[in-house]
Amino acid sequence: MGTEQLVQRRRHAMGPAYSHFYREPLYIVRGEGVWLYDDDGRRYLDCYNNVPSVGHCRPEIVDALSRQAATLNTHTRYLHHAIVEYAEMLADTLPGDLSVCTLVCTGTEANDLAYRIARAVTGNEGAICTHGAYHGNSTLVSELSPGFARKRPKPDVVADVMPPDVYRGPYRSNDPDYIEKYVQLVDDAVDELADNGHKPAMMIIDSIYDAAGIHTPPPEYQQRAHQRVRAAGGLVVCDEVQSGLTRLGDHWWGFMDSGVVPDIVTMGKPMGAGHPLAVVVTTPEIAADFARESSYFNTFGGNPVSATVGKAVLDIVQRDDLLSNVRKSGDYLLAGLRRLGEKHALIGDVRGKGLFLAVDLVRDRETREPAAAEAAEIMERMRESGVLVALIGEKRNAIKFRPPLVFTTEHADIALNALDQALEEEQ
Amino acid sequence: MGTEQLVQRRRHAMGPAYSHFYREPLYIVRGEGVWLYDDDGRRYLDCYNNVPSVGHCRPEIVDALSRQAATLNTHTRYLHHAIVEYAEMLADTLPGDLSVCTLVCTGTEANDLAYRIARAVTGNEGAICTHGAYHGNSTLVSELSPGFARKRPKPDVVADVMPPDVYRGPYRSNDPDYIEKYVQLVDDAVDELADNGHKPAMMIIDSIYDAAGIHTPPPEYQQRAHQRVRAAGGLVVCDEVQSGLTRLGDHWWGFMDSGVVPDIVTMGKPMGAGHPLAVVVTTPEIAADFARESSYFNTFGGNPVSATVGKAVLDIVQRDDLLSNVRKSGDYLLAGLRRLGEKHALIGDVRGKGLFLAVDLVRDRETREPAAAEAAEIMERMRESGVLVALIGEKRNAIKFRPPLVFTTEHADIALNALDQALEEEQ
Repeated sequence: MGTEQLVQRRRHAMGPAYSHFYREPLYIVRGEGVWLYDDDGRRYLDCYNNVPSVGHCRPEIVDALSRQAATLNTHTRYLHHAIVEYAEMLADTLPGDLSVCTLVCTGTEANDLAYRIARAVTGNEGAICTHGAYHGNSTLVSELSPGFARKRPKPDVVADVMPPDVYRGPYRSNDPDYIEKYVQLVDDAVDELADNGHKPAMMIIDSIYDAAGIHTPPPEYQQRAHQRVRAAGGLVVCDEVQSGLTRLGDHWWGFMDSGVVPDIVTMGKPMGAGHPLAVVVTTPEIAADFARESSYFNTFGGNPVSATVGKAVLDIVQRDDLLSNVRKSGDYLLAGLRRLGEKHALIGDVRGKGLFLAVDLVRDRETREPAAAEAAEIMERMRESGVLVALIGEKRNAIKFRPPLVFTTEHADIALNALDQALEEEQ
Repeated sequence: MGTEQLVQRRRHAMGPAYSHFYREPLYIVRGEGVWLYDDDGRRYLDCYNNVPSVGHCRPEIVDALSRQAATLNTHTRYLHHAIVEYAEMLADTLPGDLSVCTLVCTGTEANDLAYRIARAVTGNEGAICTHGAYHGNSTLVSELSPGFARKRPKPDVVADVMPPDVYRGPYRSNDPDYIEKYVQLVDDAVDELADNGHKPAMMIIDSIYDAAGIHTPPPEYQQRAHQRVRAAGGLVVCDEVQSGLTRLGDHWWGFMDSGVVPDIVTMGKPMGAGHPLAVVVTTPEIAADFARESSYFNTFGGNPVSATVGKAVLDIVQRDDLLSNVRKSGDYLLAGLRRLGEKHALIGDVRGKGLFLAVDLVRDRETREPAAAEAAEIMERMRESGVLVALIGEKRNAIKFRPPLVFTTEHADIALNALDQALEEEQ
């Protein structure tokens, strides 16, 4: 099937709600490590996909998946060792009392369950989320996702706060009180909920603000925000669907950079290296409180195959010390992007952490006017030179780098060259 | 790990919200066809699990899964042929204009998306669902699941109707107007929504009412209920998560037994033979209407591995003519259960269709008082004799048979003997 025919048949069979990347969509047929191959056999360096965390089609993952699928695939109403072993392995990577795991299939299901637990445990209904955030695609979780999923007026049980964007936000790092000013917005959100007759069940926080443009929250912000939410009676939910599994390079989970311990952690995309696997982790106390309201069953969640794949992913992350790899490759890529920033006036800011970086393109470094059309052009040009990235930020003017965790400094060089060249051509 | 240690570690690692089947939980380690094996090597005939539709650990499925996982696993923002081919194959099994497929991971996600589509397309907010129904485990879909998932007061956008239960419901088959009386309840639900200021966006209908005790709706009921919902401005959503994929023995999808064509069909559990795969199918017109409000993306939904596994399942269902197998084995099992009904006074009713059958146990055939404790005892005894069934119905007094679709008449004999013996011992 050629690309053109595929596009036609796809539109017919899957409808117009599906979108695709790039002006001319990519027809990808094979993956290996950090490489994707199209139907013409052309190779692309994958600087975008976090789901294939340990590399596309990693043989150990395929092997674990195949063996368990050939042995048994049932559900949690029978006992099985794999889910228990997986939950114990996960708990070992987490601080504090975060030790009770519920396995689900998608990050959306994880964030939905986190909200349900928070409501049951606190007796409150309200939720605080951040501008630009994306926590999932279901009807309810979309409401917590002002970024691009929420399509309807904000329900009055939800309050949005501006995350600390010190580059383009209302308070910037040259303001000595900027952290407290952003924290004050959390108090305002609590007040807004109170005006609507609600108290917060939770605040859901990304450990790095992806959809808003990749902003790393200052540790003091996280610490104080947690305090304010808890003082108002809510739990703190850290969404590690994107920032987790060593992505930020210093710890297994992004929130650990801030020295905080949330009440609930949600995990998703990279956990199954492509297999639908997501997790909610909380404390024994909260789990017991929740169980008083409700039992929980998820037909596919935590089946022996999913749990076995999850274990294989954790094994590789540990054995290959991907945390060190992310730190090394991420620092190297960040330094290289900063050097490009000195060379190209279009680069207004380079930010992020580990292998989760943004290059914010601007028409003017003073006004910081987003260079959205230019960013789109550069993304297309990088594709032409065999490097896949994406756009991020409210105006989609930042180039996003979020490659598999096995990305090396050699791969970074290829990406940096492609970006350099694309920026040259833009001038 | 022994069973006792596993139970302890499971409670610690997974918390108390997880439940298990049987007084002494089963530790299952291997599956093959219709057989499950525990950690002592003991074999059990699986008369319960519908998820392993084409048989536990079916080699062709394992092969398809392994090959595709070794080749590529990405997402729908790149083109891939497998999802398109799968969607086209599915559309070929469906009547009318039901041809546009959205792939998700779980039945919950499918029913959530169906509601979202219905709201977007009709402009209405209300939902009508049936007493005893279970449509999923998320916060929102739980509200549509009065069976056992809804834990909070019913929201005023939801109205529940009694499904046609002619054995223990308010109107029974000896009432010449019973169908119209049940249909009238749909009108009442529309009125209830109107009293709350809402119009129906959808009625969600099981093509066989599982959680309420396995009741097959009369075709005239389905036809008239569809008419009433549409007259009130709502769409009809048929939940085929349980009844679909030839389960009822006469058609691919249960609603086809009634000669109706819904606006949206949701599919889940058996579609991936254990792999997390679910689908929403609708018409091109509705898909186009929905796309005007919203795009849709699901990270794992419709990835090349899931789509390839889905195709392999459809291939086997077609090639092995499982529809005929279900009809033959189902009729045979039903006849055998009816014979047991003549022999054992505890059996009040035998009902269902295809390989989806219930044996309703009663203390008294006149009063139809549910024999719940006896049913629990019989389920345990059948386990002792190596046959796995479950309990269903509001009082959990009916024995539920819902085996893999590859279940044969020889397997039915084993199940019938085990039930016969368990009933003998109960007297």
